[in-house]
Amino acid sequence: MAKFTPRDASWDRKVRESFERQAFMKHLGARIVELAPGRVVLELDARPELTQQDGYLHAGVSASIADSAGGYAAYSLFPAGTGVLSVEFKINLLAPARGSRLRAVGEVLKSGRTLTICKLEVYAVTTDDVLCAAGQQTLICQR
Amino acid sequence: MAKFTPRDASWDRKVRESFERQAFMKHLGARIVELAPGRVVLELDARPELTQQDGYLHAGVSASIADSAGGYAAYSLFPAGTGVLSVEFKINLLAPARGSRLRAVGEVLKSGRTLTICKLEVYAVTTDDVLCAAGQQTLICQR
Amino acid sequence: MAKFTPRDASWDRKVRESFERQAFMKHLGARIVELAPGRVVLELDARPELTQQDGYLHAGVSASIADSAGGYAAYSLFPAGTGVLSVEFKINLLAPARGSRLRAVGEVLKSGRTLTICKLEVYAVTTDDVLCAAGQQTLICQR
Amino acid sequence: MAKFTPRDASWDRKVRESFERQAFMKHLGARIVELAPGRVVLELDARPELTQQDGYLHAGVSASIADSAGGYAAYSLFPAGTGVLSVEFKINLLAPARGSRLRAVGEVLKSGRTLTICKLEVYAVTTDDVLCAAGQQTLICQR
Repeated sequence: MAKFTPRDASWDRKVRESFERQAFMKHLGARIVELAPGRVVLELDARPELTQQDGYLHAGVSASIADSAGGYAAYSLFPAGTGVLSVEFKINLLAPARGSRLRAVGEVLKSGRTLTICKLEVYAVTTDDVLCAAGQQTLICQR
Repeated sequence: MAKFTPRDASWDRKVRESFERQAFMKHLGARIVELAPGRVVLELDARPELTQQDGYLHAGVSASIADSAGGYAAYSLFPAGTGVLSVEFKINLLAPARGSRLRAVGEVLKSGRTLTICKLEVYAVTTDDVLCAAGQQTLICQR
Repeated sequence: MAKFTPRDASWDRKVRESFERQAFMKHLGARIVELAPGRVVLELDARPELTQQDGYLHAGVSASIADSAGGYAAYSLFPAGTGVLSVEFKINLLAPARGSRLRAVGEVLKSGRTLTICKLEVYAVTTDDVLCAAGQQTLICQR
Repeated sequence: MAKFTPRDASWDRKVRESFERQAFMKHLGARIVELAPGRVVLELDARPELTQQDGYLHAGVSASIADSAGGYAAYSLFPAGTGVLSVEFKINLLAPARGSRLRAVGEVLKSGRTLTICKLEVYAVTTDDVLCAAGQQTLICQR
């Protein structure tokens, strides 16, 4: 993976503070487990209230934490005083999201002045990690 | 919109029963407000626990109800004894999801033997309805 | 479809001139058959050199004219002195692209200051028109 | 990248023969430069007839060879006697496609019985290789 240099010295703090304000991440039980310039890893524990009709974690849960992981990966590289918004994302559901935990990895593929493109991966954590979703996301830097 | 003829006489009941088993839809507060062959409309009320860092509804909330709306639109046309899974979806976030309610519309664009393609729309309900997300989804019929 | 008001009085001429400079559209044999603010329709004739392994028109041909149709639909609404670039697009191939002609329709869904979102449709023209591809595209206005 | 074992002993020959039948790839000047189970690399030389309005290679050209690269990466793993069709793909255009050559890399991310998911990358070959497009694709095995 390409290494990135943050343009905002407070990148770590501003990401964590913004994540704390995402009430929906709390509602899902998601937490930051890794944070680096251009890379964010989130995890949540499987819970009955996050499931779909067959008892697996809902595709929307995978999409939601993937969207936040990519969003904060992008935001970690933004200049001070700017905001981040998802423009769009696409996600393939590759395998049932079952197991004890879900882990979403967001990584910046391309960091531009206005737009940032991220790679998204979601793993179902069982005895080993199964790639259960993969996607790509476009984000905008709001000045 | 094209009219579709359901292949399963119990299409209405099976969609509602499957939706009831989606615990995550309850966790979001989503309900079915319209159900027709090849078309499903879901709504949820805005609540603080569904928001992102700026106080709008999280993109993952829009994506989640859009995914379920499209999934059940597809499922309404499936033969008896089959299941539905999302293969992938893509969604553009067009406007901040603010307002008192969120409404997701899933409509079948193409109904094939194995794959179904749906159009997804999400509206933020304020004094008028604002299209806040639009997407496209691929689903598979599991035999 | 929403009606749009062009911000550049020369919108019609600038779209046609830019399209003329797309040598790749000539290489495909594509032409503008309809042009309105926020909506562009392109057509090309089926030819052996545009086919894939089964003799249908290649998915890349559908994608290419859909991308240009959407790009010019967006560009028709841009202010004078700006350029257009595709940020990304997603396309579903719904049916084999066979017949005598291919028609791509690009329509603006959302026109923003920086980003524009378009709906893309491709029809295979036989005795009737068959929707053979449908997609969604994000474009950027370059100042 | 995961290693894959082809299910058809003639995988190399069948991929090359099918690629030869894609007249559109000849029209673009594309050729196979690397072929392995689950991975295909195509290249084409930049030519004036492949350009867009600013003189860069058209996004449709990048999309077209990316689609074929992914399609044949998938097909290389299919059982004998089956065919391949693109279900959908999504592609982000990350940088202008300029330079002397374009290289598309298609790699299988997930190989299922019915559906295969591929990762797509396109590089503009100049003094170094610039990632100019990245995407994701879903393919179906036709029995």
